[in-house]
Amino acid sequence: MKIFAPSMLAVALVAALPASHAQQQSNPAVPGYAYGQRALVKAPYTMADLKSLQASLLFTEEDIKALRQSKAILADQTDAILDVWYGFVASTPELVYFFSDAKTGKPDGAYLEAVRKRFALWILDTADANYDQRWLDWQHEIGLRHNRLKKNKTDRAPSVAQVNFRYIPALTIPITTTLKPFLAKKGASSADVERMHAAWVKSVLMQSILWSQPYIKDGEF
Amino acid sequence: MKIFAPSMLAVALVAALPASHAQQQSNPAVPGYAYGQRALVKAPYTMADLKSLQASLLFTEEDIKALRQSKAILADQTDAILDVWYGFVASTPELVYFFSDAKTGKPDGAYLEAVRKRFALWILDTADANYDQRWLDWQHEIGLRHNRLKKNKTDRAPSVAQVNFRYIPALTIPITTTLKPFLAKKGASSADVERMHAAWVKSVLMQSILWSQPYIKDGEF
Repeated sequence: MKIFAPSMLAVALVAALPASHAQQQSNPAVPGYAYGQRALVKAPYTMADLKSLQASLLFTEEDIKALRQSKAILADQTDAILDVWYGFVASTPELVYFFSDAKTGKPDGAYLEAVRKRFALWILDTADANYDQRWLDWQHEIGLRHNRLKKNKTDRAPSVAQVNFRYIPALTIPITTTLKPFLAKKGASSADVERMHAAWVKSVLMQSILWSQPYIKDGEF
Repeated sequence: MKIFAPSMLAVALVAALPASHAQQQSNPAVPGYAYGQRALVKAPYTMADLKSLQASLLFTEEDIKALRQSKAILADQTDAILDVWYGFVASTPELVYFFSDAKTGKPDGAYLEAVRKRFALWILDTADANYDQRWLDWQHEIGLRHNRLKKNKTDRAPSVAQVNFRYIPALTIPITTTLKPFLAKKGASSADVERMHAAWVKSVLMQSILWSQPYIKDGEF
């Protein structure tokens, strides 16, 4: 798939990052990672809303099992996955723009790296999410951090004001398409890989819908 | 997949519809179908925006080919596909609500049937879309018809004021999951079925993102 071949920009961008992306041992050690923190605002959507959304997405207990199965498979591959995802972002000008310095227009290496550490934890959190109120509040916070209401604040990044809405659900596709080969790398049956992939598509789309809430006009979410 | 077994409500709902769903011979004969009509408002997103969205969705010429391949396969199955989709909607209270009479709360058979005729054409239009300005303007119109700005007007339906945003991208999953067996019914190789299914997921998600535009706060789409 030539679209994932590292472009010159991707190579330059990865080279600008620190050499080690070793995953943090302790989640609180990742700056800005706030899943489960009491300081988070309560989500504007309810557990009942989540259940309805899950029903409309055909998201079932089978998907939860498939996601959990994926955790052990992905746990030691998050760095390699992020290399692919960051390569894709770097080679897509429309996307790397959201990591750019608002003044110079150049990708902000420190911002990219700070997000990357949380992104690694997000992979594992997606795999074993329990869909409770804490999870819901964290989705709300993630949405705010894409929207102009809160983008850049966590990392004090000098970047552009928002990630435009349309790219948020769209990224479901590159994230889950590029994940699939990693799901297949540890000997799972092809039927299990298909199940895990389908569950990932549902989960990422579901999360992207929750993250979109701050962009939606009052009363229309 | 027990989730698609017709519920009592689905059975009642389908029974309430006219016996014949024979596809219209001529598209203009389907009331409210307006693809290509000059009276449509120009979309607020541009062809360049569409190209960027396609890039972020990994939507390529290969997907366009796979979608076109699916047209001949699906052409004489649209009625059977719509039986499945309507069965799913009817068995999901959160979804059938959007077809309900705002006063009585009961599903509006005439409204369901009017939408169904356009839905059959939408299947074929999705399969051979050419992604030009006319197509873009029609996506914009479809989005408006889900939003409170224009829902119910086409069919003079006495229904609820809007389809809430969150269900629009979510429906990508049931639509494409239930479509897959129909893609496999005409002897295509399993690799081709996978390609067509993946292209359908991208196309439906892409359209649902465009349809979401009327819901998004100014400047955040």
